[in-house]
Amino acid sequence: MLGRWTAWLILCAASLLSACSTSKPPSPAEAQGQAQTVPAATLASWNDGPSRRAITDFVQAVTQPGSPDFVPAEERIAVFDNDGTLWSEQPMYFQLMFALDQVRTMAPSHPEWKTKPAFQAVLRNDSAALAKLTTRDLLQIVGATQTGMDSDQYTSQVRQWLATARHPRFHVPYNTMTYAPMRELLDYLRAHGFKTYIVSGGEVEFMRVWAQQAYGIPPEQVIGSSFAAKFEMHDGKPRLMRLPKLGFYDDGPGKPVAIQHAIGRRPIFAFGNSDGDLQMLQWTSAGAGRRFAGLVHHTDAQREWAYDRDSKIGRLDKALDEAQRQGWTIVDMEKEWSRVYAF
Amino acid sequence: MLGRWTAWLILCAASLLSACSTSKPPSPAEAQGQAQTVPAATLASWNDGPSRRAITDFVQAVTQPGSPDFVPAEERIAVFDNDGTLWSEQPMYFQLMFALDQVRTMAPSHPEWKTKPAFQAVLRNDSAALAKLTTRDLLQIVGATQTGMDSDQYTSQVRQWLATARHPRFHVPYNTMTYAPMRELLDYLRAHGFKTYIVSGGEVEFMRVWAQQAYGIPPEQVIGSSFAAKFEMHDGKPRLMRLPKLGFYDDGPGKPVAIQHAIGRRPIFAFGNSDGDLQMLQWTSAGAGRRFAGLVHHTDAQREWAYDRDSKIGRLDKALDEAQRQGWTIVDMEKEWSRVYAF
Repeated sequence: MLGRWTAWLILCAASLLSACSTSKPPSPAEAQGQAQTVPAATLASWNDGPSRRAITDFVQAVTQPGSPDFVPAEERIAVFDNDGTLWSEQPMYFQLMFALDQVRTMAPSHPEWKTKPAFQAVLRNDSAALAKLTTRDLLQIVGATQTGMDSDQYTSQVRQWLATARHPRFHVPYNTMTYAPMRELLDYLRAHGFKTYIVSGGEVEFMRVWAQQAYGIPPEQVIGSSFAAKFEMHDGKPRLMRLPKLGFYDDGPGKPVAIQHAIGRRPIFAFGNSDGDLQMLQWTSAGAGRRFAGLVHHTDAQREWAYDRDSKIGRLDKALDEAQRQGWTIVDMEKEWSRVYAF
Repeated sequence: MLGRWTAWLILCAASLLSACSTSKPPSPAEAQGQAQTVPAATLASWNDGPSRRAITDFVQAVTQPGSPDFVPAEERIAVFDNDGTLWSEQPMYFQLMFALDQVRTMAPSHPEWKTKPAFQAVLRNDSAALAKLTTRDLLQIVGATQTGMDSDQYTSQVRQWLATARHPRFHVPYNTMTYAPMRELLDYLRAHGFKTYIVSGGEVEFMRVWAQQAYGIPPEQVIGSSFAAKFEMHDGKPRLMRLPKLGFYDDGPGKPVAIQHAIGRRPIFAFGNSDGDLQMLQWTSAGAGRRFAGLVHHTDAQREWAYDRDSKIGRLDKALDEAQRQGWTIVDMEKEWSRVYAF
């Protein structure tokens, strides 16, 4: 199973420091309300362009009664990748940033880490050594810091981290680095009767802590990778323990499998940003009737990051070819979004 | 993994024929509408008694604004076991009845089964040989008949079986052998803002075919055991293939794990009928605030079946002890239900 973590765990250590170009720290964005409280869902941060038109045309076609493409509300399932699609993923997946921060926080009570090179690389912030960490090293780090506790304890740790950690480039809490246009899109879809889901390679319990506030997506609509878990009785009280063992890896071909397992309906709308989303987009597109498949293309080095075919994180190569062949919607972030973040 | 199938796959072959006491075949029950269309959700098939009062007291306490036990609607999660809790499970789990029927249907195109004793036992309806089948035999039978196809093909087969197969004792379609009082309870809870889920040892794709019609529970609220699945491209079209390999076994301690994985919230209401539901009931009860835990006790040999501590199927022993210790609601089917089935 170890090998399957590769993509998820790639550590973009080389770019970690180089990407930290300092800019004025903006004040953290206000926590956003839930979708249900948004009075009118608009796509205000989307410039008039091909992507915005593709979205509104599709939504009109499947929701207008009498339309030949009409889809009943209960089948309006929309799935979104998270890292790089709903929030940023550079210089590395934020859950890995959390794991590295946890190593630093927990080090005093783990003297045994002093003899482990992987942990030492993190603790010394040694960029050369960090760049050489293997998947096994990273799995060891994530396992040592994010398992071996119960779900409630883990949730508290994520909450604490979000409240205190700041992104190295923008100096804001990680959960404010969500894309305002995508949040608007989620609200817009829900206002038209869609049920919105996250389907991410990230770990499901990590995302649930903040997904409701950030996206208006409740815990039961968050699908992700998972650690194995075990039910245990401690002093007559049941606990769900997180085990340092992969439960399910929700990336690439795993995404349609997870969608079928958790939802049991084929989505009619899917958005991703990388090759890890290719099969989810293929699965969605191949259903009968009108479908929407979209890719966020990271083209904005100024306001966010610019990367695609050669990126270690969020590599967009095969999926970009397929999108061009199939006529999927490719969002040019620089041209089509009037703003990126809400802050 | 094989051993973990034991409980789910126990074949109650000895009781299969003896239970076939013939009675006048009633006409199949009409398909029931969805919860949303039921104008007033009542508990008409529940006699006035301790179980009915425990249910209505609980629902009033958690839904009345200003009540000290009030729970917001989005946290009103109710989970139900299926076999023996929402529909019958005798003389054996209905999905196993399906597997045996499939062996008979598929035999002509599987000449190799002629040399396999397990398949021969089914084909000759040899009750002595059936009683001796091992878990491995049964796994082989289920694997051979219910995997190796894609999800759409499997769904068609279940549909076809439900349309033609008849239960050996009541001579009705299996999906009409749902409990009318439990269907009323599901409607009643939903009318009070609850989200109702199935959490069953049965296989998720099997249940999704008929759960919406039978219970008003949509596919995305059905949680169950699963076979591993694989995404494959066939002639440019994606398919999800069902593999003859256990994915997740959703019984006993697996139920709280599955609930946390799929829902990410702890239920406030849980109903089961056997030892396989013990941990789900413990997990639900141990949450903060007021909780409801219930057991259907099969006490009605006349209208359904009577069994508990020594039953091979639906054994209710440890969970009954725990229910008595904790004061959980134990439904005496014979005394507390004015009718069992809708037909």
